[in-house]
Amino acid sequence: MNSHAGAVARRLERVRAELAELDLEGLLVSRLPNVRYLTGFSGSNAWLLIDATGATLLTDGRYGQQAEEELPRGAGFEFLIAPDGVLGELVVEQAKRQSSGSRFGFEGRHLSFAEWERLRDVSLAVEWVAVSGLVEGVRAVKEEEEIAAIETAARIAATALAETVTLVEPGVREADIASELDYRMRRLGAQRPAFETIIASGARSALPHAATSDRSVREGEFILCDFGAHWRGYCSDMTRTFVVGEAETKQREVYELVLAAQSAARSALRAGVSGAEVDAMARQVFAEADVEERFVHSTGHGLGLEVHEDPRLGRRSEDRLESNMVVTVEPGLYFPGWGGVRIEDALVVTEDGPRALVDLEASELQALPL
Amino acid sequence: MNSHAGAVARRLERVRAELAELDLEGLLVSRLPNVRYLTGFSGSNAWLLIDATGATLLTDGRYGQQAEEELPRGAGFEFLIAPDGVLGELVVEQAKRQSSGSRFGFEGRHLSFAEWERLRDVSLAVEWVAVSGLVEGVRAVKEEEEIAAIETAARIAATALAETVTLVEPGVREADIASELDYRMRRLGAQRPAFETIIASGARSALPHAATSDRSVREGEFILCDFGAHWRGYCSDMTRTFVVGEAETKQREVYELVLAAQSAARSALRAGVSGAEVDAMARQVFAEADVEERFVHSTGHGLGLEVHEDPRLGRRSEDRLESNMVVTVEPGLYFPGWGGVRIEDALVVTEDGPRALVDLEASELQALPL
Repeated sequence: MNSHAGAVARRLERVRAELAELDLEGLLVSRLPNVRYLTGFSGSNAWLLIDATGATLLTDGRYGQQAEEELPRGAGFEFLIAPDGVLGELVVEQAKRQSSGSRFGFEGRHLSFAEWERLRDVSLAVEWVAVSGLVEGVRAVKEEEEIAAIETAARIAATALAETVTLVEPGVREADIASELDYRMRRLGAQRPAFETIIASGARSALPHAATSDRSVREGEFILCDFGAHWRGYCSDMTRTFVVGEAETKQREVYELVLAAQSAARSALRAGVSGAEVDAMARQVFAEADVEERFVHSTGHGLGLEVHEDPRLGRRSEDRLESNMVVTVEPGLYFPGWGGVRIEDALVVTEDGPRALVDLEASELQALPL
Repeated sequence: MNSHAGAVARRLERVRAELAELDLEGLLVSRLPNVRYLTGFSGSNAWLLIDATGATLLTDGRYGQQAEEELPRGAGFEFLIAPDGVLGELVVEQAKRQSSGSRFGFEGRHLSFAEWERLRDVSLAVEWVAVSGLVEGVRAVKEEEEIAAIETAARIAATALAETVTLVEPGVREADIASELDYRMRRLGAQRPAFETIIASGARSALPHAATSDRSVREGEFILCDFGAHWRGYCSDMTRTFVVGEAETKQREVYELVLAAQSAARSALRAGVSGAEVDAMARQVFAEADVEERFVHSTGHGLGLEVHEDPRLGRRSEDRLESNMVVTVEPGLYFPGWGGVRIEDALVVTEDGPRALVDLEASELQALPL
C-alpha cells in the first residue's frame, strides 16, 4: 500500500466511525470534493458508494483511464463506468444490490431534490437518511501533508503578489493586474488560481466580492487584491489592500482598524474556541469604533480542497476549532462610494494558538499595504 | 428602460409564458446561471423568486452594492439582503407571504434535498412543484447580443491559441503551454478562461478530460488543447489536437477520421433536427471504421453563460435544435497508452444549417493541427 492508499484508507476509516455513530451501514457521497478526499479521484463527475464491504467509485466514460491511475491500489476500491448521461441510473443499480432494510446515509445538502426522488422511488430496499457535514467534518481537521500543500499554495500566492505589485502604477487596468498575478502563480507552480482573482480599485474596493473589471487604477486609490493558488488540489486564500502612492489619513485609519480587528481575531484562534467567538473578536473592534455595520460578511472559513469549507468563523457559527484546522481570518470595512479594506491570512489552529502559513513579517509584503 | 432592462424583461416574459403553461404562479430560481440570465446579477450567492406581481432577488451582505448596480432599473425588480448564513431563511420568509394555495415551481435538479425539506416544512401556504429545464430551455435559444458575446469569446480563444502554438517545442511543459494560453486570452480581453484549460500530451491525450500536468512534450507526440475564453459572462469552447513536429501515418489516419466525423456531425446541424441525430452522424463515421467504442463521450453541448448547457448532442438526447442555439461539435477517438484526438468547434444553428463562430478556414489555425 503506497502513502496515497494509506491516506485514503485512514480517511475512510474516520468516515466509517462517524457512520457507525449514526447507525448507518453506508454512505452515498455525491459532493465532488468529498469524493476526491476519500478516493484521490479528481475527475469532474463521480459518486462514491461506501457500503459494508468496500467502496465503489462511479464515473463516466471520459474518466476510465484516470480512475485507473488515480484510485489507490490495495485499498478495497472498485470503480464502475457508466455510459454518458446515465450515472444516476448506475447509482440506483448499485443501491438496489444492498440487502433489504439497510440504512444508508446521503448528503442532504449535496443531493438534488430530483436525484433524491429517483433514489427514493427506485431503491426500495434501502432506507435513505440525510446526513449533513459528515465528510466535511472529517476534512476540516487536516493531515500533515494537507497542511504542507496549503502552505505551498500560500507561498506561491504571496510570492506572485510581491512580483506583481512592482508593476502597479496609475493607469494600469485591474484586469491587467489580475492576469499578471495569475500568470505568475502558474509560473511558480500553481495548477491554477484557487478562485477568480479579485482586483478592485477605488470605490470598487467597497464591493466585498467585486469581479475584476477593466477599470484603470489611479493615484491615491485603494487596490484590494483577493486571490489564491491551487496546488495539487489544495487552495490558498489571501487578501491585501494597498494604496497607489500615498495614503490619506482616512485611508490609513480604516486600514489600521481592519488590521486591529484581524489581529484580535487571529489571537483568539485556538483549539476549543467556537467560530462565533473568533468572529466576535473582530466585530468587537469595529463596534468600539462604531463601524460594525460596515463589516458585511463573516470573519473567516476553513481552507483545503475547497476555498470555502468547514469550519466557519461567523456570527452564528457553533463550529468548535480543533488542532490542525486551517482557517482564514479576513475582516473588512466597506464604505459604498468611497472604498473598502480587507486583510486576510490563512492560519493553522493549534493547542497554543495560531500559526500563520506565510510568515509575512519576514517578507517584503508586510510593508506593502499602505 | 435601458437595453439590459429590456433584455431581462423579455426573458422574464418568456419564463412567465412557460409557467402559465404549467399552471404555476411563480418560480423559485436557485440555479445561479439562471438567476444571472434573468436579472443580470453576477454575484456568487443569490436566489430569485418570481411571483405573480414581480421578481425579488435575494442575496447576502457582500453583494448589496453590486445588486444595486447590476439589477436593471424599471424592470420591476426588488432585491433583499440577508445577513450572512441565513439566505435560505429569507427565501422561506418570502415564500410565506404568498397567498395560501399558490402553486410555485422550483428547480428540482438545482435545489438540494435539505433546501427542499426546509421549504416543504416551513412554507405551508405554497404548493411546491419540481420543474426541470424550464429556464434552461429559454436560455438555449440565444439573442443576438448573446451570440455576439460567444463569438467574441471564441475569437479571443482562437487568436490566443495561434499565438501560443508558436512557443510549443519539445521540452516545454503542458503547464507552461496552459499558462501562456490563459495569459494571452486575458490580455486579449477575456475575463478568465471559461474552464480549466486542458493541455494533454503524448499518451495523456487519450484521457478525454485530463488535467494539465507538468509533463514535458516530446517530438512526434500529440498535443490536445481544449480551452475557452470567458467574455462578459459568456463562454467559448474549442479543441485542437496537433503533433509536435512530423505526424506518423497512424496519427494522421486517426486525425482524418475524427475530422470526417466532425464534418458529418456539423453538416447535420439545422433547426428541427434532434441532438441524437447529430450525435449519430459522428458515431456512424467511427462505426464504419470499426472504432466506435473509442469514442467515449457525446458529440456536443450548448454553450452560453455556462460552458455546458442545453441542448445536448448525445446518443439519448431528445433535445430538438432551434435557430440561434449555439452548440459545440467535438467528436474524439482515444486509445489508452497511445494517444487521442479531439476536434471541437462552436456553431450557431440556423434554418439552413450551421454557421461556425470562428471562420477557421480563413485563419492560420486551419493548417495548425498536423
